[in-house]
Amino acid sequence: MSLKGTLYIVSAPSGAGKTSLVRQLLARDHQVRVSVSHTTRPMRPGETDGHDYNFVSLGVFNTMIEEGRFLEFAEVFGNKYGTSQCWVKEQLDQGTDVILEIDWQGANQVRRLMPEAVSIFILPPSREALRERLTGRGQDDESVIDGRMAEAVSEMSHFGEYDYLIVNDRFEQALGELQSVLVARRLRMEVQQYRQLELIRGLLSE
Amino acid sequence: MSLKGTLYIVSAPSGAGKTSLVRQLLARDHQVRVSVSHTTRPMRPGETDGHDYNFVSLGVFNTMIEEGRFLEFAEVFGNKYGTSQCWVKEQLDQGTDVILEIDWQGANQVRRLMPEAVSIFILPPSREALRERLTGRGQDDESVIDGRMAEAVSEMSHFGEYDYLIVNDRFEQALGELQSVLVARRLRMEVQQYRQLELIRGLLSE
Repeated sequence: MSLKGTLYIVSAPSGAGKTSLVRQLLARDHQVRVSVSHTTRPMRPGETDGHDYNFVSLGVFNTMIEEGRFLEFAEVFGNKYGTSQCWVKEQLDQGTDVILEIDWQGANQVRRLMPEAVSIFILPPSREALRERLTGRGQDDESVIDGRMAEAVSEMSHFGEYDYLIVNDRFEQALGELQSVLVARRLRMEVQQYRQLELIRGLLSE
Repeated sequence: MSLKGTLYIVSAPSGAGKTSLVRQLLARDHQVRVSVSHTTRPMRPGETDGHDYNFVSLGVFNTMIEEGRFLEFAEVFGNKYGTSQCWVKEQLDQGTDVILEIDWQGANQVRRLMPEAVSIFILPPSREALRERLTGRGQDDESVIDGRMAEAVSEMSHFGEYDYLIVNDRFEQALGELQSVLVARRLRMEVQQYRQLELIRGLLSE
Protein backbone atom coordinates (compact mmCIF):
# COMPACT_ATOMS: atom_id res chain seq x y z
CA MET A 1 0.00 0.00 0.00
CA SER A 2 1.22 3.43 -0.92
CA LEU A 3 -1.14 5.51 1.15
CA LYS A 4 1.78 6.48 3.37
CA GLY A 5 2.87 10.07 3.78
CA THR A 6 6.05 11.42 2.26
CA LEU A 7 9.07 12.47 4.29
CA TYR A 8 10.47 15.83 3.18
CA ILE A 9 13.91 17.15 4.07
CA VAL A 10 14.13 20.93 3.82
CA SER A 11 17.57 22.50 4.07
CA ALA A 12 18.86 26.02 3.54
CA PRO A 13 21.58 28.32 4.79
CA SER A 14 20.61 30.65 7.65
CA GLY A 15 19.00 33.71 6.14
CA ALA A 16 17.29 31.95 3.23
CA GLY A 17 13.87 32.16 4.88
CA LYS A 18 13.36 28.44 5.35
CA THR A 19 11.59 28.68 8.71
CA SER A 20 9.07 31.29 7.50
CA LEU A 21 8.34 29.28 4.38
CA VAL A 22 7.75 26.07 6.32
CA ARG A 23 5.59 27.87 8.89
CA GLN A 24 3.35 29.35 6.18
CA LEU A 25 3.21 26.02 4.38
CA LEU A 26 1.90 24.37 7.54
CA ALA A 27 -0.72 27.09 7.90
CA ARG A 28 -2.05 26.37 4.39
CA ASP A 29 -1.52 22.63 4.04
CA HIS A 30 -3.06 20.48 6.73
CA GLN A 31 -1.78 17.19 5.38
CA VAL A 32 1.77 17.98 6.50
CA ARG A 33 3.46 18.36 9.89
CA VAL A 34 6.92 19.42 10.89
CA SER A 35 9.01 17.16 13.09
CA VAL A 36 9.75 18.43 16.60
CA SER A 37 13.38 17.64 17.43
CA HIS A 38 14.75 16.28 20.66
CA THR A 39 17.44 18.44 22.22
CA THR A 40 19.69 18.55 25.26
CA ARG A 41 19.90 22.34 25.24
CA PRO A 42 18.12 24.16 28.06
CA MET A 43 14.64 25.51 27.41
CA ARG A 44 14.58 29.25 26.68
CA PRO A 45 11.93 31.68 27.91
CA GLY A 46 8.85 31.43 25.70
CA GLU A 47 9.61 27.91 24.50
CA THR A 48 7.27 25.00 25.17
CA ASP A 49 8.38 21.42 25.71
CA GLY A 50 6.93 19.20 23.00
CA HIS A 51 6.18 22.17 20.75
CA ASP A 52 9.49 23.93 20.07
CA TYR A 53 11.58 20.93 21.06
CA ASN A 54 11.33 17.80 23.10
CA PHE A 55 13.72 18.81 25.89
CA VAL A 56 15.58 15.82 27.29
CA SER A 57 18.64 15.19 29.48
CA LEU A 58 21.98 14.19 27.99
CA GLY A 59 21.47 10.75 29.57
CA VAL A 60 18.16 10.21 27.82
CA PHE A 61 19.56 11.52 24.56
CA ASN A 62 22.56 9.18 24.67
CA THR A 63 20.32 6.21 25.45
CA MET A 64 18.18 7.10 22.45
CA ILE A 65 21.33 7.16 20.29
CA GLU A 66 22.40 3.76 21.62
CA GLU A 67 18.97 2.32 20.94
CA GLY A 68 19.07 3.64 17.37
CA ARG A 69 16.00 5.75 17.92
CA PHE A 70 17.19 8.78 15.93
CA LEU A 71 16.68 9.24 12.23
CA GLU A 72 19.49 11.79 12.45
CA PHE A 73 21.27 13.68 15.19
CA ALA A 74 23.97 16.31 15.51
CA GLU A 75 25.88 18.36 18.04
CA VAL A 76 25.81 22.15 17.67
CA PHE A 77 27.67 24.40 20.13
CA GLY A 78 27.84 21.58 22.68
CA ASN A 79 24.10 20.78 22.53
CA LYS A 80 22.64 17.72 20.89
CA TYR A 81 19.69 17.71 18.50
CA GLY A 82 17.95 14.72 16.97
CA THR A 83 14.85 13.52 15.10
CA SER A 84 12.88 10.64 16.59
CA GLN A 85 12.47 7.89 14.02
CA CYS A 86 9.43 6.48 15.80
CA TRP A 87 7.38 9.69 15.66
CA VAL A 88 8.19 10.25 11.99
CA LYS A 89 7.22 6.71 10.98
CA GLU A 90 3.98 6.94 12.93
CA GLN A 91 3.00 10.10 11.05
CA LEU A 92 3.92 8.64 7.68
CA ASP A 93 1.97 5.45 8.40
CA GLN A 94 -1.10 7.60 9.13
CA GLY A 95 -0.71 9.19 5.70
CA THR A 96 0.61 12.51 7.03
CA ASP A 97 3.54 14.13 5.25
CA VAL A 98 6.42 15.12 7.54
CA ILE A 99 8.97 17.90 7.09
CA LEU A 100 12.41 17.77 8.67
CA GLU A 101 14.21 21.11 8.85
CA ILE A 102 17.79 19.87 9.02
CA ASP A 103 21.19 20.63 7.50
CA TRP A 104 23.01 18.71 4.78
CA GLN A 105 24.68 16.38 7.30
CA GLY A 106 21.35 15.43 8.84
CA ALA A 107 19.95 15.03 5.33
CA ASN A 108 22.67 12.51 4.55
CA GLN A 109 21.87 10.49 7.67
CA VAL A 110 18.16 10.46 6.82
CA ARG A 111 18.75 9.44 3.19
CA ARG A 112 20.75 6.46 4.38
CA LEU A 113 17.86 5.23 6.58
CA MET A 114 14.97 6.41 4.39
CA PRO A 115 16.13 6.70 0.78
CA GLU A 116 12.55 7.44 -0.31
CA ALA A 117 12.70 10.84 1.46
CA VAL A 118 12.26 13.83 -0.84
CA SER A 119 14.73 16.64 -0.29
CA ILE A 120 14.33 20.33 -1.05
CA PHE A 121 17.03 22.98 -0.87
CA ILE A 122 16.16 26.66 -0.51
CA LEU A 123 18.50 29.38 -1.76
CA PRO A 124 18.44 33.13 -1.11
CA PRO A 125 18.04 35.32 -4.23
CA SER A 126 21.54 36.81 -4.12
CA ARG A 127 24.72 37.05 -2.10
CA GLU A 128 23.84 40.62 -1.14
CA ALA A 129 20.39 39.66 0.11
CA LEU A 130 21.91 36.83 2.11
CA ARG A 131 24.53 39.06 3.73
CA GLU A 132 21.87 41.61 4.58
CA ARG A 133 19.72 38.95 6.23
CA LEU A 134 22.72 37.68 8.20
CA THR A 135 23.68 41.18 9.38
CA GLY A 136 20.97 41.23 12.01
CA ARG A 137 20.33 44.66 13.47
CA GLY A 138 23.71 46.05 12.54
CA GLN A 139 25.10 45.31 15.99
CA ASP A 140 27.56 42.63 14.94
CA ASP A 141 31.19 42.92 13.87
CA GLU A 142 32.05 42.42 10.23
CA SER A 143 34.07 39.38 11.29
CA VAL A 144 31.03 37.79 12.91
CA ILE A 145 29.00 38.38 9.75
CA ASP A 146 31.86 37.02 7.64
CA GLY A 147 31.75 33.88 9.76
CA ARG A 148 28.02 33.49 9.21
CA MET A 149 28.50 34.00 5.48
CA ALA A 150 31.21 31.35 5.36
CA GLU A 151 28.90 28.94 7.18
CA ALA A 152 26.05 29.72 4.78
CA VAL A 153 28.31 29.18 1.76
CA SER A 154 29.45 25.88 3.24
CA GLU A 155 25.83 24.72 3.66
CA MET A 156 24.88 25.95 0.17
CA SER A 157 27.74 24.02 -1.42
CA HIS A 158 25.64 20.89 -0.84
CA PHE A 159 22.59 22.10 -2.81
CA GLY A 160 23.27 19.59 -5.59
CA GLU A 161 22.55 16.64 -3.29
CA TYR A 162 18.85 17.58 -3.14
CA ASP A 163 15.90 16.59 -5.32
CA TYR A 164 14.39 20.07 -5.69
CA LEU A 165 15.78 23.60 -5.66
CA ILE A 166 13.67 26.63 -4.73
CA VAL A 167 14.93 30.22 -4.85
CA ASN A 168 13.30 32.37 -2.17
CA ASP A 169 13.23 35.67 -4.02
CA ARG A 170 9.55 36.60 -3.77
CA PHE A 171 8.18 34.90 -0.68
CA GLU A 172 4.71 34.13 -2.06
CA GLN A 173 6.13 32.56 -5.19
CA ALA A 174 8.61 30.44 -3.24
CA LEU A 175 5.80 29.34 -0.92
CA GLY A 176 3.64 28.39 -3.90
CA GLU A 177 6.52 26.40 -5.33
CA LEU A 178 7.07 24.56 -2.05
CA GLN A 179 3.35 23.73 -1.95
CA SER A 180 3.46 22.54 -5.54
CA VAL A 181 6.15 19.98 -4.73
CA LEU A 182 3.95 18.47 -2.01
CA VAL A 183 0.73 18.63 -4.05
CA ALA A 184 2.32 17.08 -7.13
CA ARG A 185 3.73 14.17 -5.17
CA ARG A 186 0.28 13.36 -3.81
CA LEU A 187 -1.02 13.12 -7.38
CA ARG A 188 1.43 10.41 -8.45
CA MET A 189 -0.32 7.30 -9.73
CA GLU A 190 1.28 5.07 -7.10
CA VAL A 191 -0.46 7.16 -4.41
CA GLN A 192 -3.69 8.01 -6.22
CA GLN A 193 -4.51 4.48 -7.36
CA TYR A 194 -5.09 3.69 -3.67
CA ARG A 195 -6.50 7.03 -2.55
CA GLN A 196 -9.05 7.09 -5.39
CA LEU A 197 -9.82 3.38 -5.26
CA GLU A 198 -13.53 3.77 -4.54
CA LEU A 199 -13.98 6.35 -7.29
CA ILE A 200 -12.11 4.21 -9.80
CA ARG A 201 -14.19 1.16 -8.96
CA GLY A 202 -17.37 3.16 -9.41
CA LEU A 203 -16.26 4.60 -12.73
CA LEU A 204 -15.12 1.32 -14.22
CA SER A 205 -18.00 -0.89 -13.02
CA GLU A 206 -20.36 -2.32 -15.61
CA MET B 1 21.94 20.21 -20.61
CA SER B 2 18.57 19.85 -18.94
CA LEU B 3 17.13 23.23 -19.78
CA LYS B 4 14.75 21.50 -22.15
CA GLY B 5 11.02 21.69 -21.69
CA THR B 6 8.94 18.74 -20.56
CA LEU B 7 6.49 16.90 -22.79
CA TYR B 8 3.16 16.27 -21.06
CA ILE B 9 0.55 13.81 -22.22
CA VAL B 10 -2.92 14.64 -20.91
CA SER B 11 -5.64 12.03 -21.42
CA ALA B 12 -9.19 11.71 -20.15
CA PRO B 13 -12.52 10.29 -21.21
CA SER B 14 -14.88 12.71 -22.99
CA GLY B 15 -16.77 14.60 -20.32
CA ALA B 16 -13.96 14.76 -17.76
CA GLY B 17 -13.26 18.43 -18.50
CA LYS B 18 -9.79 17.97 -19.94
CA THR B 19 -10.09 20.64 -22.63
CA SER B 20 -11.31 23.32 -20.19
CA LEU B 21 -8.56 22.47 -17.73
CA VAL B 22 -5.84 22.67 -20.36
CA ARG B 23 -7.24 25.92 -21.77
CA GLN B 24 -7.21 27.57 -18.31
CA LEU B 25 -3.75 26.20 -17.60
CA LEU B 26 -2.44 27.86 -20.76
CA ALA B 27 -4.05 31.14 -19.72
CA ARG B 28 -2.19 31.08 -16.40
CA ASP B 29 1.10 29.41 -17.27
CA HIS B 30 3.04 31.00 -20.11
CA GLN B 31 5.86 28.47 -20.09
CA VAL B 32 3.65 25.82 -21.66
CA ARG B 33 1.99 25.40 -25.07
CA VAL B 34 -0.43 22.87 -26.42
CA SER B 35 0.44 20.98 -29.57
CA VAL B 36 -1.70 21.73 -32.63
CA SER B 37 -2.46 18.46 -34.42
CA HIS B 38 -2.37 17.80 -38.12
CA THR B 39 -5.62 16.47 -39.53
CA THR B 40 -7.15 15.37 -42.82
CA ARG B 41 -10.66 16.28 -41.72
CA PRO B 42 -12.27 19.29 -43.45
CA MET B 43 -12.10 22.65 -41.70
CA ARG B 44 -15.34 23.58 -39.93
CA PRO B 45 -16.84 27.08 -39.78
CA GLY B 46 -15.05 29.13 -37.13
CA GLU B 47 -11.87 27.05 -37.20
CA THR B 48 -8.51 28.51 -38.17
CA ASP B 49 -5.76 26.62 -39.94
CA GLY B 50 -2.67 26.46 -37.73
CA HIS B 51 -4.66 27.34 -34.63
CA ASP B 52 -7.31 24.65 -34.19
CA TYR B 53 -5.55 22.16 -36.45
CA ASN B 54 -3.03 22.08 -39.22
CA PHE B 55 -5.36 21.06 -42.03
CA VAL B 56 -3.60 18.91 -44.63
CA SER B 57 -4.58 16.63 -47.49
CA LEU B 58 -4.56 12.87 -47.12
CA GLY B 59 -1.58 12.79 -49.48
CA VAL B 60 0.46 15.12 -47.32
CA PHE B 61 -0.57 13.23 -44.18
CA ASN B 62 0.45 9.87 -45.63
CA THR B 63 3.80 11.26 -46.75
CA MET B 64 4.38 12.55 -43.21
CA ILE B 65 3.63 9.06 -41.87
CA GLU B 66 6.06 7.50 -44.36
CA GLU B 67 8.76 9.98 -43.39
CA GLY B 68 8.25 9.18 -39.70
CA ARG B 69 7.31 12.75 -38.92
CA PHE B 70 4.51 11.97 -36.45
CA LEU B 71 5.05 11.43 -32.75
CA GLU B 72 1.66 9.72 -32.80
CA PHE B 73 -1.25 9.47 -35.19
CA ALA B 74 -4.68 7.89 -35.28
CA GLU B 75 -7.74 7.52 -37.45
CA VAL B 76 -11.09 8.57 -35.99
CA PHE B 77 -14.32 8.29 -38.01
CA GLY B 78 -12.31 8.09 -41.24
CA ASN B 79 -10.23 11.20 -40.55
CA LYS B 80 -6.56 11.13 -39.60
CA TYR B 81 -5.03 13.09 -36.75
CA GLY B 82 -1.36 13.33 -35.82
CA THR B 83 1.22 15.23 -33.76
CA SER B 84 4.26 16.61 -35.58
CA GLN B 85 7.43 15.43 -33.91
CA CYS B 86 9.43 18.32 -35.34
CA TRP B 87 7.28 21.07 -33.82
CA VAL B 88 7.23 19.39 -30.41
CA LYS B 89 11.00 18.94 -30.32
CA GLU B 90 11.57 22.54 -31.37
CA GLN B 91 9.42 23.77 -28.48
CA LEU B 92 11.11 21.50 -25.96
CA ASP B 93 14.56 22.58 -27.16
CA GLN B 94 13.57 26.20 -26.56
CA GLY B 95 12.69 25.28 -22.97
CA THR B 96 8.92 25.43 -23.51
CA ASP B 97 6.76 22.70 -22.02
CA VAL B 98 4.36 21.07 -24.46
CA ILE B 99 1.01 19.42 -23.76
CA LEU B 100 -0.44 16.74 -26.00
CA GLU B 101 -4.16 16.11 -25.57
CA ILE B 102 -4.35 12.57 -26.85
CA ASP B 103 -5.95 9.25 -25.94
CA TRP B 104 -4.30 6.21 -24.36
CA GLN B 105 -3.30 4.79 -27.73
CA GLY B 106 -1.56 8.00 -28.75
CA ALA B 107 0.03 8.09 -25.31
CA ASN B 108 1.52 4.65 -25.91
CA GLN B 109 2.99 5.73 -29.25
CA VAL B 110 4.53 8.84 -27.67
CA ARG B 111 6.00 6.92 -24.73
CA ARG B 112 7.76 4.60 -27.15
CA LEU B 113 9.45 7.51 -28.93
CA MET B 114 9.87 9.82 -25.93
CA PRO B 115 9.94 7.77 -22.73
CA GLU B 116 10.77 10.92 -20.73
CA ALA B 117 7.27 12.30 -21.41
CA VAL B 118 5.19 12.88 -18.27
CA SER B 119 1.63 11.61 -18.48
CA ILE B 120 -1.43 12.82 -16.60
CA PHE B 121 -4.85 11.19 -16.55
CA ILE B 122 -7.95 13.15 -15.61
CA LEU B 123 -11.01 11.44 -14.14
CA PRO B 124 -14.54 12.77 -13.62
CA PRO B 125 -15.73 12.82 -9.98
CA SER B 126 -18.38 10.10 -10.39
CA ARG B 127 -20.14 7.90 -12.90
CA GLU B 128 -23.29 10.01 -12.51
CA ALA B 129 -21.43 13.25 -13.24
CA LEU B 130 -19.82 11.66 -16.27
CA ARG B 131 -23.12 10.41 -17.67
CA GLU B 132 -24.65 13.82 -17.13
CA ARG B 133 -21.81 15.50 -19.00
CA LEU B 134 -22.16 13.01 -21.85
CA THR B 135 -25.91 13.49 -22.11
CA GLY B 136 -25.53 16.74 -23.97
CA ARG B 137 -28.74 18.75 -24.23
CA GLY B 138 -31.02 15.81 -23.66
CA GLN B 139 -31.59 15.35 -27.38
CA ASP B 140 -29.79 12.04 -27.70
CA ASP B 141 -31.14 8.52 -27.39
CA GLU B 142 -30.25 6.50 -24.33
CA SER B 143 -28.42 4.09 -26.63
CA VAL B 144 -26.22 6.90 -27.97
CA ILE B 145 -25.36 7.98 -24.43
CA ASP B 146 -24.72 4.36 -23.46
CA GLY B 147 -22.27 4.16 -26.34
CA ARG B 148 -20.46 7.28 -25.16
CA MET B 149 -20.31 5.87 -21.63
CA ALA B 150 -18.84 2.60 -22.90
CA GLU B 151 -16.22 4.54 -24.82
CA ALA B 152 -15.40 6.64 -21.73
CA VAL B 153 -15.08 3.53 -19.57
CA SER B 154 -12.79 1.96 -22.16
CA GLU B 155 -10.53 5.05 -22.13
CA MET B 156 -10.58 5.21 -18.31
CA SER B 157 -9.53 1.57 -18.01
CA HIS B 158 -6.04 2.76 -19.02
CA PHE B 159 -5.63 5.29 -16.20
CA GLY B 160 -3.00 3.11 -14.49
CA GLU B 161 -0.54 3.59 -17.36
CA TYR B 162 -0.11 7.28 -16.44
CA ASP B 163 2.30 9.04 -14.06
CA TYR B 164 -0.25 11.30 -12.37
CA LEU B 165 -3.96 11.08 -11.64
CA ILE B 166 -6.16 14.14 -11.17
CA VAL B 167 -9.85 14.00 -10.26
CA ASN B 168 -11.78 16.90 -11.76
CA ASP B 169 -14.35 17.36 -9.04
CA ARG B 170 -13.97 21.05 -8.22
CA PHE B 171 -12.55 22.75 -11.33
CA GLU B 172 -10.32 25.27 -9.52
CA GLN B 173 -8.74 22.57 -7.38
CA ALA B 174 -8.11 20.30 -10.34
CA LEU B 175 -6.60 23.22 -12.23
CA GLY B 176 -4.33 24.01 -9.28
CA GLU B 177 -3.26 20.39 -9.16
CA LEU B 178 -2.47 20.34 -12.86
CA GLN B 179 -0.42 23.52 -12.42
CA SER B 180 1.41 21.99 -9.45
CA VAL B 181 2.59 19.05 -11.53
CA LEU B 182 4.17 21.42 -14.06
CA VAL B 183 5.62 23.79 -11.43
CA ALA B 184 7.11 20.97 -9.36
CA ARG B 185 8.83 19.42 -12.35
CA ARG B 186 10.52 22.74 -13.14
CA LEU B 187 11.96 22.79 -9.62
CA ARG B 188 13.76 19.46 -9.94
CA MET B 189 17.48 19.77 -9.33
CA GLU B 190 18.38 18.45 -12.78
CA VAL B 191 16.53 21.44 -14.29
CA GLN B 192 17.31 24.07 -11.67
CA GLN B 193 21.04 23.47 -11.51
CA TYR B 194 21.19 24.87 -15.04
CA ARG B 195 18.41 27.43 -14.81
CA GLN B 196 19.88 28.94 -11.61
CA LEU B 197 23.50 28.60 -12.69
CA GLU B 198 24.33 32.31 -12.46
CA LEU B 199 22.73 32.65 -9.04
CA ILE B 200 24.52 29.58 -7.72
CA ARG B 201 27.88 30.84 -9.01
CA GLY B 202 27.32 34.17 -7.32
CA LEU B 203 26.27 32.60 -4.03
CA LEU B 204 29.17 30.16 -3.85
CA SER B 205 31.94 32.50 -5.06
CA GLU B 206 34.65 33.46 -2.60
